[in-house]
Amino acid sequence: MDEIVIHTLDWVPELPRGYVRDLRVRWALEEAGLPYRVESTPLRQKTEEHFAHQPFGQVPWLTHGDMTIFESGAILHYLGTRSEALMPADPSQRAQVTQWLFAALNSVEMPVVPWTLFRFANEEPDSQGWRQLNGFLHGRLKHMDTVLAKTEWLVGDFSVADIAMSDVLRLVDRFEELAAYPKCRAYVARATARPAFRKAHADQLAHFAAADG
Amino acid sequence: MDEIVIHTLDWVPELPRGYVRDLRVRWALEEAGLPYRVESTPLRQKTEEHFAHQPFGQVPWLTHGDMTIFESGAILHYLGTRSEALMPADPSQRAQVTQWLFAALNSVEMPVVPWTLFRFANEEPDSQGWRQLNGFLHGRLKHMDTVLAKTEWLVGDFSVADIAMSDVLRLVDRFEELAAYPKCRAYVARATARPAFRKAHADQLAHFAAADG
Repeated sequence: MDEIVIHTLDWVPELPRGYVRDLRVRWALEEAGLPYRVESTPLRQKTEEHFAHQPFGQVPWLTHGDMTIFESGAILHYLGTRSEALMPADPSQRAQVTQWLFAALNSVEMPVVPWTLFRFANEEPDSQGWRQLNGFLHGRLKHMDTVLAKTEWLVGDFSVADIAMSDVLRLVDRFEELAAYPKCRAYVARATARPAFRKAHADQLAHFAAADG
Repeated sequence: MDEIVIHTLDWVPELPRGYVRDLRVRWALEEAGLPYRVESTPLRQKTEEHFAHQPFGQVPWLTHGDMTIFESGAILHYLGTRSEALMPADPSQRAQVTQWLFAALNSVEMPVVPWTLFRFANEEPDSQGWRQLNGFLHGRLKHMDTVLAKTEWLVGDFSVADIAMSDVLRLVDRFEELAAYPKCRAYVARATARPAFRKAHADQLAHFAAADG
């Protein structure tokens, strides 16, 4: 079988540790029980090889034999087509997983990441743009709370859609901003209690700590 | 053959016309030459049926026989599996289209939409969060300009990835912010010159204008 390799940064500062997106890929591979290896690429002097595999200079990217693929969402989808532990084989259920994968990354993460830029800077500027961004996020959380009141996992018994969605909500939870959304908070707790998440998370922390030298 | 129906709003104000995301789906169906119909759902009094099909109360969603699917990215992917005019059948090329579809919506559109909230409000607040958001967008545009210097379309001879990416960049172009990124601008011009885009765009404008009464 062709070897699966996750490519991530060699080192990051404390702040993003535990949140770098290779976590999503580690988590999926742990859920699926597929063997993999992790390789590092330098943060400080990004290489041409890095941009050849990931044109934005981000991580992760995945190699699987001759195949190379970037974007955590696309990697999760790709792995989903290789393990029913990650995505059911039924075409209609697959379309539902794909739908929720895009929803996590395009409807929910879209406001989350820009919102964290303001929150990490400890800012709530007197600005219509900021108020709209904050409202955008809370609208999404409100609707996700309704969805998660009715179901334990987004599709079936767990899928890559749950990896993406819970990881996105986890970043909001970091700022205690899920307090008003108990179903979202319980979902994050349920997802991060899974052994595959715990292993992936511990492995990422260990990976970056090993480079502290 | 099961009927394909795009569900969109009955009416929107002038500002978003020509940019509502049903455009992406109309465009894909026109490229593929697949027959479809458009149905309206009310903007002002959103229905339970709307939330049952699209839990965030957004549009579009697609129905195809018994299948119902939301998220423009997921719909584009779904249609791609039904027409080689939208996505090659080769699994490796499919993974590349999926990758660029996620890149358009999660790496590029992620800063674009929040950035437009500030620009529509005509604001550039004295804020670290805003400066980081603006830098986030321009970093993505810079790297996309490098990518688009080397290729006419992202994968093969055109795919749903180009529909998503060019539509995202089109929103930046609306603010003349592609001036420093000539390859991005030329790509948007190339994509929007396609007959399928022109028809989809004209049809969306006509759809909302018809409701002005």
